[in-house]
Amino acid sequence: MMTPTEKRRRFRAVLAGPKVRCPATVYDALSARIAEAVGFELGILSGSVCSATVLAAPDLALHTLTEFAHQVRSVTRHTDLSIFVDADQGFGNALNVMRTVEELEHAGLAGLAIEDLVMPSRFGHTGPDELISIGEAQGKLRAALQARQDPSLVIVARTASVRTEPIADVVSRVRAYEATGVDGVFVTGLKNIEHLDAIRAALKCPIVLGTAPGISNDEVEKRGVRFRLQGHPPVAAAAKALYETYRHLYGGGSPADLKPRIATPEQMEQWTGAEQYQRSTEDYLR
Amino acid sequence: MMTPTEKRRRFRAVLAGPKVRCPATVYDALSARIAEAVGFELGILSGSVCSATVLAAPDLALHTLTEFAHQVRSVTRHTDLSIFVDADQGFGNALNVMRTVEELEHAGLAGLAIEDLVMPSRFGHTGPDELISIGEAQGKLRAALQARQDPSLVIVARTASVRTEPIADVVSRVRAYEATGVDGVFVTGLKNIEHLDAIRAALKCPIVLGTAPGISNDEVEKRGVRFRLQGHPPVAAAAKALYETYRHLYGGGSPADLKPRIATPEQMEQWTGAEQYQRSTEDYLR
Amino acid sequence: MMTPTEKRRRFRAVLAGPKVRCPATVYDALSARIAEAVGFELGILSGSVCSATVLAAPDLALHTLTEFAHQVRSVTRHTDLSIFVDADQGFGNALNVMRTVEELEHAGLAGLAIEDLVMPSRFGHTGPDELISIGEAQGKLRAALQARQDPSLVIVARTASVRTEPIADVVSRVRAYEATGVDGVFVTGLKNIEHLDAIRAALKCPIVLGTAPGISNDEVEKRGVRFRLQGHPPVAAAAKALYETYRHLYGGGSPADLKPRIATPEQMEQWTGAEQYQRSTEDYLR
Amino acid sequence: MMTPTEKRRRFRAVLAGPKVRCPATVYDALSARIAEAVGFELGILSGSVCSATVLAAPDLALHTLTEFAHQVRSVTRHTDLSIFVDADQGFGNALNVMRTVEELEHAGLAGLAIEDLVMPSRFGHTGPDELISIGEAQGKLRAALQARQDPSLVIVARTASVRTEPIADVVSRVRAYEATGVDGVFVTGLKNIEHLDAIRAALKCPIVLGTAPGISNDEVEKRGVRFRLQGHPPVAAAAKALYETYRHLYGGGSPADLKPRIATPEQMEQWTGAEQYQRSTEDYLR
Repeated sequence: MMTPTEKRRRFRAVLAGPKVRCPATVYDALSARIAEAVGFELGILSGSVCSATVLAAPDLALHTLTEFAHQVRSVTRHTDLSIFVDADQGFGNALNVMRTVEELEHAGLAGLAIEDLVMPSRFGHTGPDELISIGEAQGKLRAALQARQDPSLVIVARTASVRTEPIADVVSRVRAYEATGVDGVFVTGLKNIEHLDAIRAALKCPIVLGTAPGISNDEVEKRGVRFRLQGHPPVAAAAKALYETYRHLYGGGSPADLKPRIATPEQMEQWTGAEQYQRSTEDYLR
Repeated sequence: MMTPTEKRRRFRAVLAGPKVRCPATVYDALSARIAEAVGFELGILSGSVCSATVLAAPDLALHTLTEFAHQVRSVTRHTDLSIFVDADQGFGNALNVMRTVEELEHAGLAGLAIEDLVMPSRFGHTGPDELISIGEAQGKLRAALQARQDPSLVIVARTASVRTEPIADVVSRVRAYEATGVDGVFVTGLKNIEHLDAIRAALKCPIVLGTAPGISNDEVEKRGVRFRLQGHPPVAAAAKALYETYRHLYGGGSPADLKPRIATPEQMEQWTGAEQYQRSTEDYLR
Repeated sequence: MMTPTEKRRRFRAVLAGPKVRCPATVYDALSARIAEAVGFELGILSGSVCSATVLAAPDLALHTLTEFAHQVRSVTRHTDLSIFVDADQGFGNALNVMRTVEELEHAGLAGLAIEDLVMPSRFGHTGPDELISIGEAQGKLRAALQARQDPSLVIVARTASVRTEPIADVVSRVRAYEATGVDGVFVTGLKNIEHLDAIRAALKCPIVLGTAPGISNDEVEKRGVRFRLQGHPPVAAAAKALYETYRHLYGGGSPADLKPRIATPEQMEQWTGAEQYQRSTEDYLR
Repeated sequence: MMTPTEKRRRFRAVLAGPKVRCPATVYDALSARIAEAVGFELGILSGSVCSATVLAAPDLALHTLTEFAHQVRSVTRHTDLSIFVDADQGFGNALNVMRTVEELEHAGLAGLAIEDLVMPSRFGHTGPDELISIGEAQGKLRAALQARQDPSLVIVARTASVRTEPIADVVSRVRAYEATGVDGVFVTGLKNIEHLDAIRAALKCPIVLGTAPGISNDEVEKRGVRFRLQGHPPVAAAAKALYETYRHLYGGGSPADLKPRIATPEQMEQWTGAEQYQRSTEDYLR
């Protein structure tokens, strides 16, 4: 298997390269293996997906850093994917950010993002998400960089400001974030290609882009985006498949009738490394 | 939510009732929620499924009791399903069986099975699975019963002997197992309905049946089977859906084109309890 | 072993009784067993002790709910002590409080406290600890009560306001907290017995008291205190013993010379339940 | 902090050096910090100590690999100690040994030992511990070496054969173990310096020695021992301190009277890194 440092360097090469790349959303060892078998080199495990699969809960900052790191390890330990995560707000203040980086680096991540949102929701708050101040965000980013042990680990600043702030203020934010020395800026909630132009003009570092329907890969690649999320349809696809399978069986349908809809035994063996275990059995146990 | 004791009593009522019931194979909080939404009251989490999803490994006794209990909790804590598991050989000798029961009872299971196989594979062994002696199996079952704190927890003896032993020996085994006071006998590898007749004739307790293709629910119900596994097609269905989604995206396909194949946002919200969290937000956070 | 509900009822009886009781500070299975062997029925595991022993870190809200629950389980699973914890601010907002109660109840606690402090420290804040508003605190307490599954679990409101607020404001706070239906009020930072008089006059529920040097048990018992902390000297005593043992050995001292300073093999066997395991070995493994 | 590889290289240098060194027994983050503060560079976390502190149980192979790795991480993540562990029999067969190495390497160990005992105890077995065959032990050792990712991780073969086998057979065993390519041989139960002579004569690799009362460091150093255990008195010292503190407090003694027996606040601050956290607070949170 690749070492964590090798996975991080591969991810760095993507950010430094000329093209935009999209990761596979993965969330447990099996999904990660399947993504890898298909050809993916990059994966993402978001907080929302962790919350949905581990807690069956919405994206409300309910999972703990430990639960998140646990799920990350389940993925990083069993594939060569370079895994990137959004680590939300860093699970607290700047000191908690430091622990977040330590835990997630130890879990074998290739990269992570720290976001500038007030999380979890403040008591009495309604309306759109609140941002922390630029000063607070810079403190968190500098703390994250300081906590990193392996310099190849990628740390980016994630901002949701484009959803709620005038573009001039967004530009001030991303400039301030870049000035901390982070490896990139992660923009979420982009609706408008002109906003990306303004952000690109303000930055030298690579850009990571969250889900932005209606904007093409070509358009964003030209503007410095090197890593782009596409939502998390694999989770929803697995959920639909589960739903239909359960409905079939609950209605008294036969397991045999499910054959066209399920992976073959040979596929399951491939994805669970049966051959390699068979070899180890012969080498060490006979 | 139902308490663990309530879930256990519901499972006991199934075993004591007149009909055979099949559980949904579940493996994380999300899959369990979907199965529950479809109507299932009973779930199963097998060692093989734990190994596949958490370790991306085949069914070779590679997962630890802690890993297994962790995944069980992810399921039991977030649904009302009564969950049954096969706890393999109890993760060691009779003392380890006691820890196994303590951990899994604490994790909120409704029932568990302890098997009479030599696990993990013995050095130098080839050929079919080996059985432990009747005396050793009885020691394990008595230890399991002793370790149980909540008397409503279901503990059954699982035997793979029907695969490899003459039926007379199988009958001796299951009689000896029943004599320890277990709540049922779990037969795996059944190929032949006459074998079930012989087992039924030897026992007063309910029977749990492993995958037995080609034998109908009616046939087994008449012979005392009250809980019947049907393999684990939901896992393979989710795996196939992931595979196809990854292939689509890896090939440059658009996320938007996946719409017919994925759960709707409304379904995902239902399965992750969005409405209830919204209510709690309004009640306690505004 | 006692069930969690039995442990909770015993703790409730203490709160409802006529006397003040002090718990043993415990932090792992071994310390809990020793406290139990000495005669303690009540134990406490504080966030600060978890942070010190698990993270070797000061009391800065650095440990996660999962880490805390893990250490709680190590204690509750292996003794009959009724364990009380301070659960800090509930690890986030009112929704996180709900998870906190679910996790810690599942971990087998007898009781827990939710505090009215801003935690972790706010960016830019200096000076004494900040309090959340009464409304926010009430939301958290109501959320905690709602999340409780076993009605015998004790939930108390912890306030640090006596350190920083005029006593009239403290009284308003504790009245508002009691009005949510909590089982008691936990006062930390008490310096002055008159403050306790004012608090007592305002409340009907039992009082839990944090470390308050110079104030006697008799004085606080008369004023409704039923459970009183005494700091965490056992941790510091173990730390000193470790320090001296390490110094002896690092300096080339002989292990044999340590004999007077260490527990005897018979004590270690008693505290690790050797006899009971020996019995199980004979009953189930021979 | 030192990286895992740096810690491993330091441990390798000890094994390759001219002197015998003794590690500190550590078992949680706090004990490890204290040992480090005293000057230790090497630590050991044995299965028996894990079992005692985490499960309050005797040394009967009751803890899981996950529990062990969890405790190892608590130590490795918070100090620069090079940590060595005995990983018992590798938690199962040769395939489980591979997982053991993967988990423990990931947990940041400097070195580990795989033992040649039948563990956990076999049903019906009485009398002294049983050994696995030389072939099985070699299979496990080769599997361990194969599973290692970082070549600097130290893997040694532990043998208990000296307790029960004629010395000629012990010599055959250790020769066979060395032939697999392990980094050393770990001898436990040594009673007799002549046995060590025979073992030394048979081997080229360094020797690790378990507790051997009455045999001096000088004697073993001359015979190739480079790392020597001295039992686990620090655990028993902490246990005694806890016992006496609990007795004092349970008897109604005052916490203030414990002052001479407990670490000072300044020591606790030093061991929990208070100064460094204070600096981070000022740097990133103000």
